[in-house]
Amino acid sequence: MGKNKCSSARSEIQKLIGYTFKNPDLLDEARTHGSSNRSLNYHRLEFLGDAVISCLIATVLVESDGGRELNQGQLTLLRKDIVDNEKLACVCIFHDLNKYLIHNEKKFHSRFKEFKRELRDNPERDQWRGLVSELKVLADLVESLIGAVFLDSDYSLEKAWKVFVKLLKPLINPDKVRRDPKTMLKELCERMGWKEPYYDYSVWEKRGIVRVRVNGFPPFESGKRCSNKDVAIARAAKAALESNSLKEYSTSIFLQESETIRIVLKALKEKDTFYSSKTS
Amino acid sequence: MGKNKCSSARSEIQKLIGYTFKNPDLLDEARTHGSSNRSLNYHRLEFLGDAVISCLIATVLVESDGGRELNQGQLTLLRKDIVDNEKLACVCIFHDLNKYLIHNEKKFHSRFKEFKRELRDNPERDQWRGLVSELKVLADLVESLIGAVFLDSDYSLEKAWKVFVKLLKPLINPDKVRRDPKTMLKELCERMGWKEPYYDYSVWEKRGIVRVRVNGFPPFESGKRCSNKDVAIARAAKAALESNSLKEYSTSIFLQESETIRIVLKALKEKDTFYSSKTS
Repeated sequence: MGKNKCSSARSEIQKLIGYTFKNPDLLDEARTHGSSNRSLNYHRLEFLGDAVISCLIATVLVESDGGRELNQGQLTLLRKDIVDNEKLACVCIFHDLNKYLIHNEKKFHSRFKEFKRELRDNPERDQWRGLVSELKVLADLVESLIGAVFLDSDYSLEKAWKVFVKLLKPLINPDKVRRDPKTMLKELCERMGWKEPYYDYSVWEKRGIVRVRVNGFPPFESGKRCSNKDVAIARAAKAALESNSLKEYSTSIFLQESETIRIVLKALKEKDTFYSSKTS
Repeated sequence: MGKNKCSSARSEIQKLIGYTFKNPDLLDEARTHGSSNRSLNYHRLEFLGDAVISCLIATVLVESDGGRELNQGQLTLLRKDIVDNEKLACVCIFHDLNKYLIHNEKKFHSRFKEFKRELRDNPERDQWRGLVSELKVLADLVESLIGAVFLDSDYSLEKAWKVFVKLLKPLINPDKVRRDPKTMLKELCERMGWKEPYYDYSVWEKRGIVRVRVNGFPPFESGKRCSNKDVAIARAAKAALESNSLKEYSTSIFLQESETIRIVLKALKEKDTFYSSKTS
């Protein structure tokens, strides 16, 4: 990347995230993938950004109305539901941040394009599970940007928060909470004291269908033929959760949590500064 | 707990951690176990404290000399080596914080005493693995105290850092880095491109011995009869790592990481304020 191109990329990103770096080298480090031939890549900033985001979301969660009543396991799952790799990858693609990634991975360009198209055509998440390794790179980029802002601002959670919320905000819809059906089904079984769901792949090769068995109920199926196993697993779990046999249990168990997620997402959307609730 | 006893416990803890709470209810919440009949327990503060500590250690790690060169997986393992539940439980016992835990669990008192004795008589960690569920409670208490300080101080990483380092400092010995042998052996195999270590329990019942097989070498044994399976597993892994067959590989692979841990522990011991490296 030439010097001019690099400098214009820098100013575009800074405008986009609403933060100007004192040390622009950190910004370049944050957008350099391991496949590039540069000496520094985003590994350490991704690690840091992940910790910073976890800390920010944990704070909002424990201070929310529902957060007080939940245990650590539930809070951890909720945080995962709010900012998992899929969500962060969507944030990356939504803002076209991927075009600033410095890398030498030939397939990225077409895979990012494919993901963007999938996202537009099939906003339901179970359609684009096949792209999971590229999701990771896209999520990494968001995490490492947050890590870079945190370091550059002398460890300011406030600055990191502002950038994070600015990026996340357009994608937050508190009235449409989507959770991973496989995780939910597993949790449901734990809470009911049932054995873990058993995924049956005996007809996978032949018919592209996955079945899941739960607590002696007749097996739940993933529906029409599917080419991606993870997608089929998610569909089978969803079928189970929405079945007449399990609907009643899952509704009562996940109602409070869904409500908590809704409250937290609403808080995220409205909370422009991290410290506001305390200092104003 | 009577009102006077509660108030004196509060002032003792505050003196010990070097922080005075604006809202002492947070301090009581931080030391209330789920077994107590109080309405609030430390669950949410433990969740928050865990995230805050992760963020603090991540920052020190990525800014350390060795941290720049490591990838996210290695950094995550290093952080675990620096502040896992065992370390935090030791911190708790060292400062006698456990006596301030509000709970209704009859076995805790004797188990804490047992742990304290084990720790004094057998400082090598593989001796007290059997006490793992109590370790968790003790570690939780340290985490929730840090979470409470962070909330009470209007999200100050600096204040959380000061309390954390004050508690951790007496237990840090940069020249004696101890890592979990089972994790190390697994990592060694990954890095060498070998299959995962295979733990063989065929003589466990009869002889109290666990064997581990690695990359076709003759199996490594846990040594003399042992009554706790986790301890035996750790010993077998240690025997493998220190064997003539694997020593060369493990030394070269873990040398840099051990050096990084040493540097970070040294930094922890010397870094009294979180922001000092930047602002002074």
